[in-house]
Amino acid sequence: MKVVKFGGSSVANDEQIKKVGSIVADDSDRKFVVVSAPGKRFKDDVKITDLLIELSDLALRNKSFDKKLTEIMERFSEITSELNLSQVILTDIKQSIQSTLSSEMSDRAKADELKSIGEDSSAKIVSAHLKTIGLNAQYVNPKEAGIIVSNEPGNAQVLPESFAKLYNMRQRDGIIVIPGFFGFTQEGQLMTFPRGGSDITGSIVAAGVQADLYENFTDVDSVYVVDPRMVENPEKVTELTYKEMRELSYSGFGVFHDEALMPAFQREIPVCIKNTNNPQSPGTMIVSEKDQQSRCVVGIASDTGFSNLYVSKYLMNRELGFGRRLLQILEEEGISFEHAPSGIDNMSVIIRDNQLTAEKEINVINRIKQELNPETISIDYGFAMVMVVGEGMMNAVGIAEKSTAAFAEANISIEMINQGSSEVSVMFGIRKDKLDLAVKSLYHKFFE
Amino acid sequence: MKVVKFGGSSVANDEQIKKVGSIVADDSDRKFVVVSAPGKRFKDDVKITDLLIELSDLALRNKSFDKKLTEIMERFSEITSELNLSQVILTDIKQSIQSTLSSEMSDRAKADELKSIGEDSSAKIVSAHLKTIGLNAQYVNPKEAGIIVSNEPGNAQVLPESFAKLYNMRQRDGIIVIPGFFGFTQEGQLMTFPRGGSDITGSIVAAGVQADLYENFTDVDSVYVVDPRMVENPEKVTELTYKEMRELSYSGFGVFHDEALMPAFQREIPVCIKNTNNPQSPGTMIVSEKDQQSRCVVGIASDTGFSNLYVSKYLMNRELGFGRRLLQILEEEGISFEHAPSGIDNMSVIIRDNQLTAEKEINVINRIKQELNPETISIDYGFAMVMVVGEGMMNAVGIAEKSTAAFAEANISIEMINQGSSEVSVMFGIRKDKLDLAVKSLYHKFFE
Repeated sequence: MKVVKFGGSSVANDEQIKKVGSIVADDSDRKFVVVSAPGKRFKDDVKITDLLIELSDLALRNKSFDKKLTEIMERFSEITSELNLSQVILTDIKQSIQSTLSSEMSDRAKADELKSIGEDSSAKIVSAHLKTIGLNAQYVNPKEAGIIVSNEPGNAQVLPESFAKLYNMRQRDGIIVIPGFFGFTQEGQLMTFPRGGSDITGSIVAAGVQADLYENFTDVDSVYVVDPRMVENPEKVTELTYKEMRELSYSGFGVFHDEALMPAFQREIPVCIKNTNNPQSPGTMIVSEKDQQSRCVVGIASDTGFSNLYVSKYLMNRELGFGRRLLQILEEEGISFEHAPSGIDNMSVIIRDNQLTAEKEINVINRIKQELNPETISIDYGFAMVMVVGEGMMNAVGIAEKSTAAFAEANISIEMINQGSSEVSVMFGIRKDKLDLAVKSLYHKFFE
Repeated sequence: MKVVKFGGSSVANDEQIKKVGSIVADDSDRKFVVVSAPGKRFKDDVKITDLLIELSDLALRNKSFDKKLTEIMERFSEITSELNLSQVILTDIKQSIQSTLSSEMSDRAKADELKSIGEDSSAKIVSAHLKTIGLNAQYVNPKEAGIIVSNEPGNAQVLPESFAKLYNMRQRDGIIVIPGFFGFTQEGQLMTFPRGGSDITGSIVAAGVQADLYENFTDVDSVYVVDPRMVENPEKVTELTYKEMRELSYSGFGVFHDEALMPAFQREIPVCIKNTNNPQSPGTMIVSEKDQQSRCVVGIASDTGFSNLYVSKYLMNRELGFGRRLLQILEEEGISFEHAPSGIDNMSVIIRDNQLTAEKEINVINRIKQELNPETISIDYGFAMVMVVGEGMMNAVGIAEKSTAAFAEANISIEMINQGSSEVSVMFGIRKDKLDLAVKSLYHKFFE
């Protein structure tokens, strides 16, 4: 039995929803369907969820939102009419919006509930369409399905009791269509998930019903070994392990947020990334363990926006606690660090730029000067990180050589190398203006 | 004007002391001579200082030390008679030992003073010999010379007022011979230096008198690019910077303890490592800055005796303060760390084995388990570190490639790479049984 999740572009219009219908009809194992809100139909289109947020902003500031409501309803209307669905769905959607706005809830709760109407409506539409094409399908609300979450609007976390409840859903006849992106507290309050919301729902459902496979339908044929915006037509990844996925996601690999898949990962449910527009393509399997015979390096991830805080002091390595105190100053200023390579008399701390504000930076520098009395202190911006990822590479001789050769051939000097803790990746720090060149050269080295 | 320091093997017997005489006579700039105690004359010989420590141990436990005293006096007697020096020197040495033993000082002070008699006697002998060969030389005691130190027996630190006092010694006529290894507190108490004691004295004198050059005579022609016990007939280093020297010394490079040279380094006095047995050889110059045209990599240093403490925990990188708390636990157990490479969900801490006892290890592991709740924790012994050292290498493209290629060619998997903080070195962690092979391969790559 499979759980199938369709992303925003897969339910953006009637044409896409018909593809969803065919995909579900095509395999009787596809029993649980989780859907996102209708996404963009074309490049400059606006997602339904964004329209709902705009409406909510206007309404909560007591401004007129009629135009926005009309716009939203037109989008849904276009879909339902093209799919020949009952007008009742439209009335139902409009009423959901209006009753939320006129309810007694706090503004925050209202905003959260409005934001979720895109997914909820999408599930109702998909379920109705599946019936139209002759399938025994039903819409099931997350509360009824058993998705119980913590009381954190916009950042809800699934509670463990959800899984047993979801398991009971296996008993239900037919195909169950569940909206993604939200759950309910024990008290029955609606709460949305953080980033990657519908992926989270899909993953929770797959874990709960103990699916044989969690199929995540997107608009790409597979995960690629490198960001396709950086290298043209890159090689596809046929199989990834969870760990590899996590390392790749960390460095802005896109596709999705690895934490969204955690519920499925923890219960060792295999995940398959597939394309709604090309369902015949095998996609990318994400598994807990893979054949050791396969290639060592599975992908190259990269990200910009790092800074290097450098501190030097003669005989630093004799000063018990120096490194710890440096990290503590950062911590007390609320700054988390990524890596901290150290020499004999010096230490660098790699920080994501979004952790630093001008004020924090001044505080940190002043405190380090006063408390640690270093000889040199500097912050160097403009770092990029490139990660070469693959399980088993740590035991392979020559991966470090092959990687560093790629940098040398592109005439790029390596500012930092971090290898030694993760068994799945080696990380290189370079100047950000060299990133594109570096990624291309690594791709060439490992995959061409 | 030059300060010349002769190590233990350079003053081990009459033959060696004659070489010292020729070297001093050969260059009228050699005005300050600092000497060690007579060292080993042959492989299984015992150093005079070790005999003095044995004598001190016996005497302070009220045991008979006559045999030891005879042995010591025979060594000195052999030297003075072969050099045709006055018997007064011998009487003087014996009296120093006896008066120290019968004095009212604490046992600790007695032991420190006895330990210093080797250098003190050596300076008297060398000074007398220089006179014999027609030079205007005089023995000057460190108290008279102005070497003022902190009150830390066996670990004395030079006090800043020493330098001005030493500068006044420039006024003195002739050649000044000063015993190495000890100084005096403000109150006139004798204190010995830590490891590398005579090198420290030489360096302090060179700094104080503002020498044009500090010549450090040993028994090797120069510093080598790699430990000659690991590679046969390795290339000589003609020039090193202070920073390079420090990085090389860190990883057990031998030659000497970099801190001994600090007083000279801080005043930018150039240092030359030369061979008493081959004074014509140009030796190795250690300077503050060197010609950027010269070779990037100057040496390969290595050391064993490291362990890797590995901790993993899912979402560790989200947990503000995780790394800091891990280091704090180590610090509270009195353990300093060398490096701490980190992955997304894991962190390694490289520790010198001598920092760990079985008890500390159990404490650390238990505390980490209780306080940080990790998924995995392990300690892996048998790490070795290899360091490729050279100023300017950070800006050079391809050094990382060349280094990693050396490991790959020797079929050695790299467990850790630490690059990014020091501008002068890249450090590699490997299994210790591969160390010899790794060093040979790196030497081959960079120097052959």
